[in-house]
Amino acid sequence: MEFASMDSKALKQYREQLYKRYKDFQGKNLKYNMSRGKPCKEQLDLSMELLNIKEYENEDGLDCRNYGIVDGIPEAKKLFSKLIEVDEDEVIIGGNSALTMIYDTLSRAMLFGVSENAIPWRKLPKVKFLCPCPGYDRHFAICELLGIEMIVVDMKSDGPDIDTIEKLVAEDDTIKGIMCVPKYSNPDGITYSDEIVDRLAAMKTKAKDFRIIWDNAYIVHHLSENGDKLKNILKACKKAGNENRVYIFASTSKITFPGSGVAVMASSSENIERIKSKLIIQMIGPDKINQLRHVKFLKSVENIEEHMKKHAKIIGPKFSEVLNILESELGGKGIAFWNKPNGGYFISLNTLDGCAKKIVKMALEAGITMTPAGSTYPYGKDPRDRNIRIAPSLPSMDELKNAIEIFCICVQIVSVDKLLNSR
Amino acid sequence: MEFASMDSKALKQYREQLYKRYKDFQGKNLKYNMSRGKPCKEQLDLSMELLNIKEYENEDGLDCRNYGIVDGIPEAKKLFSKLIEVDEDEVIIGGNSALTMIYDTLSRAMLFGVSENAIPWRKLPKVKFLCPCPGYDRHFAICELLGIEMIVVDMKSDGPDIDTIEKLVAEDDTIKGIMCVPKYSNPDGITYSDEIVDRLAAMKTKAKDFRIIWDNAYIVHHLSENGDKLKNILKACKKAGNENRVYIFASTSKITFPGSGVAVMASSSENIERIKSKLIIQMIGPDKINQLRHVKFLKSVENIEEHMKKHAKIIGPKFSEVLNILESELGGKGIAFWNKPNGGYFISLNTLDGCAKKIVKMALEAGITMTPAGSTYPYGKDPRDRNIRIAPSLPSMDELKNAIEIFCICVQIVSVDKLLNSR
Repeated sequence: MEFASMDSKALKQYREQLYKRYKDFQGKNLKYNMSRGKPCKEQLDLSMELLNIKEYENEDGLDCRNYGIVDGIPEAKKLFSKLIEVDEDEVIIGGNSALTMIYDTLSRAMLFGVSENAIPWRKLPKVKFLCPCPGYDRHFAICELLGIEMIVVDMKSDGPDIDTIEKLVAEDDTIKGIMCVPKYSNPDGITYSDEIVDRLAAMKTKAKDFRIIWDNAYIVHHLSENGDKLKNILKACKKAGNENRVYIFASTSKITFPGSGVAVMASSSENIERIKSKLIIQMIGPDKINQLRHVKFLKSVENIEEHMKKHAKIIGPKFSEVLNILESELGGKGIAFWNKPNGGYFISLNTLDGCAKKIVKMALEAGITMTPAGSTYPYGKDPRDRNIRIAPSLPSMDELKNAIEIFCICVQIVSVDKLLNSR
Repeated sequence: MEFASMDSKALKQYREQLYKRYKDFQGKNLKYNMSRGKPCKEQLDLSMELLNIKEYENEDGLDCRNYGIVDGIPEAKKLFSKLIEVDEDEVIIGGNSALTMIYDTLSRAMLFGVSENAIPWRKLPKVKFLCPCPGYDRHFAICELLGIEMIVVDMKSDGPDIDTIEKLVAEDDTIKGIMCVPKYSNPDGITYSDEIVDRLAAMKTKAKDFRIIWDNAYIVHHLSENGDKLKNILKACKKAGNENRVYIFASTSKITFPGSGVAVMASSSENIERIKSKLIIQMIGPDKINQLRHVKFLKSVENIEEHMKKHAKIIGPKFSEVLNILESELGGKGIAFWNKPNGGYFISLNTLDGCAKKIVKMALEAGITMTPAGSTYPYGKDPRDRNIRIAPSLPSMDELKNAIEIFCICVQIVSVDKLLNSR
């Protein structure tokens, strides 16, 4: 029954029951963490073979232990360019984090501009980025650190609000880019439709140095048999005559080891050449032994897809369990709405307006750490204070059941309070 | 006999003999590389045990495979802070390259300034750095990329010309720093004296945000039993009341694997805290498994010192051989002057003025790749065109003998030509 249609007395009575359950849980001194998209131990164990690989000579006889090669060993380029569906001269294979590559790309844009003739962004009075929201807090943190002003764009069911985006970028040349997690978006789990990809690639931008940060973090991270398909944006950009518009990022962080993976970026060969000309000065080179380890372990794109099925087998049931509990505890009550993702690491839940912060606080006081409310918006400010990101991967199944049950109790209590207060 | 005191006829005859030897070598189609301080295969083999280490849980039970920890695992902090002789809260343990950490430190200074209240250097019309020369080409390349104007300061036998440095920094507040390789300097092999360290730490600088980049790249890289001792500059800075003045860097690149080592930076805890506040946004964290591997393999500072003796046993004889050939081919001829380093990776040789470029070119035409002449000065411009950096580590002993003999022939031919032309 919808809470809104219950009378105040019934709501108050129901609140008492909820509160008793909450207090019971609180007495148990639980401590669960659902704040980050962190793989669990069983997932990490899937890649233990990595630690057995002792090879250090690559296919060309290069000694990977020594200095040399700033953009990745050839076999790593081969494998990851296939994964991203670009050419080998369109990739750079990096260290252990795509986020570092994203920061690095943006800090280079600030310091040196995005191309030979472009003005370094640091010289401009204002630089703005579009941020589809809810979105990834660490993207927003990078923009904030670099002094890039963020403009919220709403996420729709097929990607960000492209009509608004087209309008904004056509008018304002201080808008220099957009932050995208185009597949199984963080936190909504939405994959951009072909139309959205095409329009992002082809739209007229007043800024000639407009760039799309295309963080394809969940490129092979399906939860169901039939994973979503994302259109190739580099191809779309080329077709539209905007081949330098996009920087694509991916990594093995959630394929092998989050702390010791291999990251990759892709872009037009012109962009890649320019980046390499700076990289060769700013670094000695990535850890080539670790790249070789990954190539030997991951072998092929087909094998990566097989490997990812093992991940799905571990975290898929966790997602299902969360969705089941959400449905049984909150379904039909008209107080919360959530997505059912086909992949990625999150379930995004919207509460009644103005409830998210209170719910997250209340959950924390019962030992459940959620991502702070507001994190999915720039500057930590969710204008409607309603979005909460749930990350089911890390806790064990038992922990997860408890944690989500407590969370659902909190959602209900705070919602009842809101409804009662507004009467 | 000194070339300058030989008559022209004798010089010409001698040149003919030299040129015959040169041509003979040229006919052999040799291909040797002495351009970079690159360890040889035997050195890399010293650390093969690294690849056998499969541990991933640290002493606190932390799973190093997963996300987390931006500044290094505790045991790595313990080991490397001891090596650098600083406290554990004064280090950050990074990825595989100190050079990347140096670039990163300077690019942060450009973007955000070096402290909360300091102006970001990008906002200043001019930023200058002092560069003791001859020096490290990759330091100069970073300054050039970031638009930092470089001022040459001469190296003396006990470190850079400190009288000149003190005078310059006292007068000019656009001088924001100095680039130092304080131990077994690149390429001279000079270790700064205690007095130089103290004066750098205590000198009055007009710029309040003056910083010393202290690239202690050869911290344990001795070639003789009694290695040089370098005074602790962080302590000296603290004593002088300038505790935030210095950033120290080191790495295991030439201890274990150049491409897959562990880098470390050290500074005052205040500086380290500020850097961490940015790092936590710009990156996910370093490769913790590789840090753990290194701690397990290197164990202790004492063990590192023992390990370095094995390196010295491999490259020490190469240095001796080079020095012997230089002495027998060039000694007493008044055309070249070189150092005899106690450690590090280079022998620095000065020719007669205006000869270095020609010699390196001539050597290349006989198959010997040297570091390009001029590289040891900012912008690749050696004002006297005389400094040549010799890197003996990579070639085998036989290759090295040939290479240095050819090099010495080139030095003599070009010197004879210079002397004859000036008569």
